[in-house]
Amino acid sequence: MELSIRALGEARQPSPLQLSTVSGDSIADFTPPNARVFLDPTQASAGQPSFELAGPRALNYFRGPEVTAAIVTVGGLCPGMNNVVRELVLTLWHRYGVRRILGARYGFRGLMPDSPEPLQALDPGVVRDIHLQGGTVLGSSRGPQPVDRILGLLQQRGIDMVFCIGGDGGMNGARALYEETRRRAAPIAVVGVPKTIDNDLPYIERTFGFDTAVSIASGAIRAAHVEARSAPNGVGLVRLMGRHAGFIAAAATLAAREVNLVLVPELPFAIEGERGLLAWLWQRLDRRDHAVIVVAEGAGQEHLTGGAGRDASGRDASGNVKLGDIGVFLRDRLIAAGRSRDLQLKYIDPSYIIRATPATPSDAIFCGDLAESAVHAAMAGKTGLVIGLWLNRLTHLPLATATDGRKTISLDGSFWRSVINCTGQPAQLV
Amino acid sequence: MELSIRALGEARQPSPLQLSTVSGDSIADFTPPNARVFLDPTQASAGQPSFELAGPRALNYFRGPEVTAAIVTVGGLCPGMNNVVRELVLTLWHRYGVRRILGARYGFRGLMPDSPEPLQALDPGVVRDIHLQGGTVLGSSRGPQPVDRILGLLQQRGIDMVFCIGGDGGMNGARALYEETRRRAAPIAVVGVPKTIDNDLPYIERTFGFDTAVSIASGAIRAAHVEARSAPNGVGLVRLMGRHAGFIAAAATLAAREVNLVLVPELPFAIEGERGLLAWLWQRLDRRDHAVIVVAEGAGQEHLTGGAGRDASGRDASGNVKLGDIGVFLRDRLIAAGRSRDLQLKYIDPSYIIRATPATPSDAIFCGDLAESAVHAAMAGKTGLVIGLWLNRLTHLPLATATDGRKTISLDGSFWRSVINCTGQPAQLV
Amino acid sequence: MELSIRALGEARQPSPLQLSTVSGDSIADFTPPNARVFLDPTQASAGQPSFELAGPRALNYFRGPEVTAAIVTVGGLCPGMNNVVRELVLTLWHRYGVRRILGARYGFRGLMPDSPEPLQALDPGVVRDIHLQGGTVLGSSRGPQPVDRILGLLQQRGIDMVFCIGGDGGMNGARALYEETRRRAAPIAVVGVPKTIDNDLPYIERTFGFDTAVSIASGAIRAAHVEARSAPNGVGLVRLMGRHAGFIAAAATLAAREVNLVLVPELPFAIEGERGLLAWLWQRLDRRDHAVIVVAEGAGQEHLTGGAGRDASGRDASGNVKLGDIGVFLRDRLIAAGRSRDLQLKYIDPSYIIRATPATPSDAIFCGDLAESAVHAAMAGKTGLVIGLWLNRLTHLPLATATDGRKTISLDGSFWRSVINCTGQPAQLV
Amino acid sequence: MELSIRALGEARQPSPLQLSTVSGDSIADFTPPNARVFLDPTQASAGQPSFELAGPRALNYFRGPEVTAAIVTVGGLCPGMNNVVRELVLTLWHRYGVRRILGARYGFRGLMPDSPEPLQALDPGVVRDIHLQGGTVLGSSRGPQPVDRILGLLQQRGIDMVFCIGGDGGMNGARALYEETRRRAAPIAVVGVPKTIDNDLPYIERTFGFDTAVSIASGAIRAAHVEARSAPNGVGLVRLMGRHAGFIAAAATLAAREVNLVLVPELPFAIEGERGLLAWLWQRLDRRDHAVIVVAEGAGQEHLTGGAGRDASGRDASGNVKLGDIGVFLRDRLIAAGRSRDLQLKYIDPSYIIRATPATPSDAIFCGDLAESAVHAAMAGKTGLVIGLWLNRLTHLPLATATDGRKTISLDGSFWRSVINCTGQPAQLV
Repeated sequence: MELSIRALGEARQPSPLQLSTVSGDSIADFTPPNARVFLDPTQASAGQPSFELAGPRALNYFRGPEVTAAIVTVGGLCPGMNNVVRELVLTLWHRYGVRRILGARYGFRGLMPDSPEPLQALDPGVVRDIHLQGGTVLGSSRGPQPVDRILGLLQQRGIDMVFCIGGDGGMNGARALYEETRRRAAPIAVVGVPKTIDNDLPYIERTFGFDTAVSIASGAIRAAHVEARSAPNGVGLVRLMGRHAGFIAAAATLAAREVNLVLVPELPFAIEGERGLLAWLWQRLDRRDHAVIVVAEGAGQEHLTGGAGRDASGRDASGNVKLGDIGVFLRDRLIAAGRSRDLQLKYIDPSYIIRATPATPSDAIFCGDLAESAVHAAMAGKTGLVIGLWLNRLTHLPLATATDGRKTISLDGSFWRSVINCTGQPAQLV
Repeated sequence: MELSIRALGEARQPSPLQLSTVSGDSIADFTPPNARVFLDPTQASAGQPSFELAGPRALNYFRGPEVTAAIVTVGGLCPGMNNVVRELVLTLWHRYGVRRILGARYGFRGLMPDSPEPLQALDPGVVRDIHLQGGTVLGSSRGPQPVDRILGLLQQRGIDMVFCIGGDGGMNGARALYEETRRRAAPIAVVGVPKTIDNDLPYIERTFGFDTAVSIASGAIRAAHVEARSAPNGVGLVRLMGRHAGFIAAAATLAAREVNLVLVPELPFAIEGERGLLAWLWQRLDRRDHAVIVVAEGAGQEHLTGGAGRDASGRDASGNVKLGDIGVFLRDRLIAAGRSRDLQLKYIDPSYIIRATPATPSDAIFCGDLAESAVHAAMAGKTGLVIGLWLNRLTHLPLATATDGRKTISLDGSFWRSVINCTGQPAQLV
Repeated sequence: MELSIRALGEARQPSPLQLSTVSGDSIADFTPPNARVFLDPTQASAGQPSFELAGPRALNYFRGPEVTAAIVTVGGLCPGMNNVVRELVLTLWHRYGVRRILGARYGFRGLMPDSPEPLQALDPGVVRDIHLQGGTVLGSSRGPQPVDRILGLLQQRGIDMVFCIGGDGGMNGARALYEETRRRAAPIAVVGVPKTIDNDLPYIERTFGFDTAVSIASGAIRAAHVEARSAPNGVGLVRLMGRHAGFIAAAATLAAREVNLVLVPELPFAIEGERGLLAWLWQRLDRRDHAVIVVAEGAGQEHLTGGAGRDASGRDASGNVKLGDIGVFLRDRLIAAGRSRDLQLKYIDPSYIIRATPATPSDAIFCGDLAESAVHAAMAGKTGLVIGLWLNRLTHLPLATATDGRKTISLDGSFWRSVINCTGQPAQLV
Repeated sequence: MELSIRALGEARQPSPLQLSTVSGDSIADFTPPNARVFLDPTQASAGQPSFELAGPRALNYFRGPEVTAAIVTVGGLCPGMNNVVRELVLTLWHRYGVRRILGARYGFRGLMPDSPEPLQALDPGVVRDIHLQGGTVLGSSRGPQPVDRILGLLQQRGIDMVFCIGGDGGMNGARALYEETRRRAAPIAVVGVPKTIDNDLPYIERTFGFDTAVSIASGAIRAAHVEARSAPNGVGLVRLMGRHAGFIAAAATLAAREVNLVLVPELPFAIEGERGLLAWLWQRLDRRDHAVIVVAEGAGQEHLTGGAGRDASGRDASGNVKLGDIGVFLRDRLIAAGRSRDLQLKYIDPSYIIRATPATPSDAIFCGDLAESAVHAAMAGKTGLVIGLWLNRLTHLPLATATDGRKTISLDGSFWRSVINCTGQPAQLV
């Protein structure tokens, strides 16, 4: 696992930040160059992997007044994108004196020389109130663009650093762009702020927007619970995000505390059979007369193969495999199977409401921390990295590592243990 | 149009309420027996129709300590049902001294002699905090039940008054029950509190839950707008309630003020053709690159006939004609038609979130007023009526009139004028 | 009572709005010139007073492309000010083609020739998202300014219409300005949108911001109730707005439904004595161990005369008499009197949170209606009026009438009857 | 520093939880007996302190069906108290089969033999919906009670375990009770769930309610910002909780991102002088015309000594030193000093609204985790501990250590660095 971070060159510029290099003087400190956090706090082995800590350096590679920075937002909406954009701009402007900040419209296509929408100048006035809104004021889009042409635009416009706020597709794009800068020895810092509402990046404890997503999702579960309780044989079924990892569905379950069964991609489940979903549901209804079920979008994909709910097995513009709609599939399946019981099923899919919501205060804080760290990293000349979080400390993680594999729920771990304690669901459904 | 209200008998019991019959003494007054409000305040014709005003009477038919009251909630969920239940109980208990209050479980079936769930005793402790939750703690169901058997149960249990909180099905059921009480000369007051989230009852300005529905719906529109603005060729499509009348869709449009086109059942629209939906959408996208469309569930049903989105042409348990899903239909239609433009459509259907939401403060006030008025009416021995609102005054409206016809949006009127001023949409789409 | 509306001159310009003058053609109609609504819908007397209906006229005095309009916001903050500003701009721009719209900064002082802040050009882009924020983007201030100098500026800048969004001070200022325009025969329309969070204007059923204020206030009451219930001898005391009229306090009481006593300016109350506040409180605590009290800022002023809570008896910059702080007074008084009982009192004053809140969806709709009506009135050449609401219909009310007297709660009426039904408080406290 | 945890005796009872002791079998695991987390993840020294991990043990001391458990809530309100009570009850009942669960009314006084309020039986039905409300359904109070008499009641009622949800006073009470159980060799487990909205406990990263507090506080800051921006020389001043540590004020500042100066107890500040508060304010107003200031309740206490804002220097019933009201002091001081500038100051103190709010989803999850861990610990026979959080892992922390000293903001650290980056305030104000 690659954990060391590359720099564009030697950092010789004294930082304009009025921080201290002395501990204990009641003045906030620069981050020392070699500060790291270890992978496993339950082990004390000096040989274990560790991550470089993020934070302002006493010596930088760039001088703010000479810098041109670009910001791009890529992929689906996620709460907090505008917060990150805003804090990038404010930190660059107020703390480092950067005066040329450019926003790319509609994702990477806004960094193409022939983009129909020009780069947009950003300053504190432009971004002042954008954190009050969901979405991204820059616009976003999916799909890769040729990195050689993007690099051409960056060089033509004299751009020194690119901040990429994006998910799978965005981070892969940032990685390709970074590799192209290395290939062409272009002194441009490429720094990512990972945006995955599913919170499924490896070696990153938390991604922005996740707290907001869980918050809104738990409200949708509450509605499903009210519907279920208000009818005989009432069933509330909520579909939530989570293509490969069920973190949102599981965490929203823990927040709402009114879910009886949560289905996540990590957990195989049968529909028929004595340990299957239907058998569980009939028992639950016999005992309690209502049930609340949450399903993550990536769960139970095996049930969709070749079926009606299955899209053509292509990939979307970001290269993601298109999933079948397990929510609609289960809705129809349960209604059909429950007809004799006069099952009253209400189906809720809050996905696009969640994605477009402004950030919760907790996410707003986190977005601010991420953006500041991203600026500090770029000013120090670091490149090819994303800002991560490990053991509550902000870190620098190589783009190569962040895009290699995924984080999923460990069914052996304490998080899932809390989930099944909370729902009371059986440990296995096959 | 029948506007006079029946009573069970002469009202001779002095009210226990400490109100005044003297105007101007700074003590709140009883409602005089003959107080009425006229239909049209822009006309001053003494011959025009008028409605009986609701409110506490100085003389009642019933004495509280001798009364047994029953409450039933019928049909789909609507914000405020628990508020109405709570305030019925508190007013009966604290103001009139009623000590036997029974809640029927799961709608009219809870009033059947062989109901699996017994009547539930209600008192101030039981209902204390229920207004903080959506749904109905009594449970609800659809579908008629034989009124003769219900009346049998009422008589067997000595029930003197039935409060029915319900929509189309519920009001028809209450009307049938009322007619049965008259046929059998049973001295039981039947009083309805109309629950139609669509706000489509004739001669009733406002029904409870509507303010809440509009409030949550406008949040969903906001999300659609954020999604639409964040993508090139972005379209946000929101489906809202409104089977026969587009009040929720139109009012949410006025609240969100970010809708470009709202489609309601009252307004026919073409899809193809130069004045059709698609032509409008391409023009809008050419000019502004994004669009927000709201569609009420009952709009454009003519496009669904025989089509894939169309359910079997039966009726549901409440006797409502099953509608095809115009939202899913339009979603698929627009995506297909917009493929060459790379249309980015996000579809939001917040229906069940809306229905399960607790009441807004404004609806909480209104629910309180309705419940108090219902109790005053029943205590006065009035029967066969619902509580209405006309020119901001609470009224008594005969059940027969309330269930005869519907209120819809007048395309000539000032409400629709405000809508098209707000959206800028063309006056006609065919 | 003056109810007729003045016009600058004959209306000869055909309206650019694509509305109909034919009823029943399914196209929204212009408002007929002579449409009125009567004062009392419970009377059918053709001789009773009536108000001119607001709405778009088929013939106008002004032509949009030739118009210069100014907007000013005056006095304390109120939810919805930005909504009104936004909809004024959008209606002027999109519906009437007005292209010169100027915003005055910080109230009337921004209309002074020597204002430090210049008039600000407004267009749809500038106001696009302002309704998402509380406050006023134009800024506001209190205090009168010499109307002759303001009129000088208006004439110098060629301003044809002034929209004034303001409360007591603002409406008096608008009236003085209007009278100055008449004195000098200046063809400038002066149209007010009344902004009184207290909802205390005569002949106006509702003012914008009131729904929002009640909504947030009821949340503060809920907090007070939670605090009161969680402690032995717990008392929650909430101070709310309402200088001369207790509408917010009373309506928030009706919304929260957990208040045991509400004190309003209209209701005199004793503190000592057997019918006084303290005697009531001890009885309540003996019986129920907790209590929630709401007090409007203008209540019980007689207890403050010459006392410690009393400010110097001057007036503030708007000319309002400065009130003593009844909330702090009662807090200290109750704590002192309750020391022997170990009274646990929690005091909440949410005033500035309420004032700065964005508008609820219901207020957003209403602000849109008011703004559109104001534009229609000004374009028709009407002047010296405010937009009112009577029997749910938007009206034109002369500035002279709107600023003459106040609306207060009638202790004899049905609104106060609902309040005392809800709280169970005694009818009299002296 | 004491970090080892005491147990009542040997754990021999097999757990009823269907968990695994085998890693990697896709079944959630019991927590191994010796699992620990190290103090400092940036060091890899095996000799450094470590904390015992919380979680379910494979072998317990108690058998659920034989257990009687008691729950007590102590001190001021904090969001999430009801969530903790609910999840304690549900985990005891559903997971361990405990059927005798007793709630003490109004804090420790409810555990006194002569309490006026009897212990209240708790079961899943009673607690079902309490998490939707703020406060504590058990009631709370401050002040110590004689632990020998409490222990007498516990023994008389056969209580085996006491869960104490409390702050400073509550934890000191729990510690005294625990020490008394040891002195008298009573086999009663005493387990604390720390409730300090200020988040100021040593070796505990986060306490429940803090996320909610920051969330609501940031809304109050937003209101202050709107007020400040809407007036010339507008100042918004917000007072927040934080007696000894400014975490809420600082975190709410980071969340709102619109604060220009935050004053915390850790940071001394002058009022006069060239680096003092007033000088800073005049500069800020000259430059930007408005300012937002947040002050924690424990900040600047030196300015209050002997002054008018200072309470009698006693202690409250929990033994806390009474603080003077720095918010009111600063409000009056700034208004007086700013009179010549016509300073427009709006003061907001949202404390009791914050305390009474229901938990955010994030706090709801955390409360569930804490409660489950507390039950697991007590069932395992562990005692004299609180549930803590360190490096995102739930821990067992001795009561002695949790009540010894406080956590405060390190002015050298990265959290404060983010704060001053966000506000742009000077590093020093003296």
